[in-house]
Amino acid sequence: MLTHKINEVKEHVKKWKQEGLKIGIVPTMGALHAGHGSLIKKAVETCDRVIVSVFVNPIQFGPSEDFDKYPRTLEADVKLAEGLGADLIFAPSADEMYGEGQRLSNDTLTYVVPPFFYVNKLCGKSRVGHFDGVCTVVLKLFNITQADYGFFGQKDAQQLIIIRKMVNDLNIPIELIGCPIVRDDSGLALSSRNKYLDEKGKEDALALNKILNNIKACYNKGVNDISALKETAFQFLNEAHDLEYLEFVDKDNLEDKTTADDNTLVLIACRVNDVRLIDNITLK
Amino acid sequence: MLTHKINEVKEHVKKWKQEGLKIGIVPTMGALHAGHGSLIKKAVETCDRVIVSVFVNPIQFGPSEDFDKYPRTLEADVKLAEGLGADLIFAPSADEMYGEGQRLSNDTLTYVVPPFFYVNKLCGKSRVGHFDGVCTVVLKLFNITQADYGFFGQKDAQQLIIIRKMVNDLNIPIELIGCPIVRDDSGLALSSRNKYLDEKGKEDALALNKILNNIKACYNKGVNDISALKETAFQFLNEAHDLEYLEFVDKDNLEDKTTADDNTLVLIACRVNDVRLIDNITLK
Repeated sequence: MLTHKINEVKEHVKKWKQEGLKIGIVPTMGALHAGHGSLIKKAVETCDRVIVSVFVNPIQFGPSEDFDKYPRTLEADVKLAEGLGADLIFAPSADEMYGEGQRLSNDTLTYVVPPFFYVNKLCGKSRVGHFDGVCTVVLKLFNITQADYGFFGQKDAQQLIIIRKMVNDLNIPIELIGCPIVRDDSGLALSSRNKYLDEKGKEDALALNKILNNIKACYNKGVNDISALKETAFQFLNEAHDLEYLEFVDKDNLEDKTTADDNTLVLIACRVNDVRLIDNITLK
Repeated sequence: MLTHKINEVKEHVKKWKQEGLKIGIVPTMGALHAGHGSLIKKAVETCDRVIVSVFVNPIQFGPSEDFDKYPRTLEADVKLAEGLGADLIFAPSADEMYGEGQRLSNDTLTYVVPPFFYVNKLCGKSRVGHFDGVCTVVLKLFNITQADYGFFGQKDAQQLIIIRKMVNDLNIPIELIGCPIVRDDSGLALSSRNKYLDEKGKEDALALNKILNNIKACYNKGVNDISALKETAFQFLNEAHDLEYLEFVDKDNLEDKTTADDNTLVLIACRVNDVRLIDNITLK
């Protein structure tokens, strides 16, 4: 069932809570693909009732980012989510989420601001304010749905770590479940932004996965020097690629690693034909 | 019953929720007086179970403020709160609230940041970061206690308006109840910081209430020019007083008033013998 209204979600939630049912939330920006599908499946397995939110959240996009262009496919999203067993699809307008005509700025709205240490690196470095917007909307969704479980993809690894930190720091009564990256047959990590890629772009985009797999293979052969591991990346890059970062951090707290070890998360962000893509791998 | 541990609060809350009981939270910094008492009484009337938190929250004090000196009277607080019917007094350490040995900064912790427009005036202007600390700890307390109702004093009027804004902006499932200012027989608004005042200080402190009452009396006689109303204050001020602000704002959204009307909240902050005191009155 599809709803656009916060109050309707609350009515369902109230009833479900009274019946003692466990509620799961899968927050998405829509344009659902099999990656989202895996989150919804996991949620349906884990919970009695599953809410999938579909909301392209304006406050997590920078002024020069792809908010207007971001794919919107609500009808297909509802079909996919319901087909996998979701009970409620919540697709609010920005007015519904932030108040009618509300100016969206930290001058006029309460924000959740994750720690600077977690934000001032990786994607946060080029996307200033992005994770403030993410945390704010995610907390709103947690509060509206009163969910017992929240489902997030490991593909947005920095996001998941920041949301875990938020849940811990603010004592939010929810259990987070991170789900593995889903890839297509070629190895490309699924992303709604893959829709921006043409055939050549899709081929060029494979470099991200190849770089990460190669680093893991080298690590498994005994290489733990990060400079040496980074250098293995260059063989996969050509003029189609604009590498934004390739970083080695602790998989729990994002601290930079000086040497690669089993707790190391390797993350890459790269523009491929001007489409910004990300991917990551844990070395263990 | 007194507890210092988040998990013990959660156990009680879980049991109470299962029994369908309504929970109230009265967040305090301790040094309880009859003002807090009125909040606790109201909570006991309104709710099935009442939690009073006693926590001098380090992150809402500036470096030059009175965190170390702030009065701590836990034994008396427990007695007063239990005497009024509170079920649980939650008095955590800073380590319990923020993590053991955690550095308390926005570099390492997730903060709730209220809108700049609400913060960059009145008390927020001299107490930079104060309301970030307040909102963060209040949201933590709401989440830990899962309270249905939260009780706050109207004396901290800007705080109450900012917390209402937070609850609305973040869709926090709680109902806020603001309670009227409690005054002693002389008219002085009760405050834990009154303990810093000697006899002469207490007398000088009466100026705040006199100024506000006089403004309201003039308004009721038909004066709505704010400059004229402000000028009436000076007759009550002498060398013991260092006036920080005397402002006329909308009682719901803190917008500056150009002319006094029934929705006007008049707020005053004044140092009296170097003790910072606040008070306020609604014109209607």
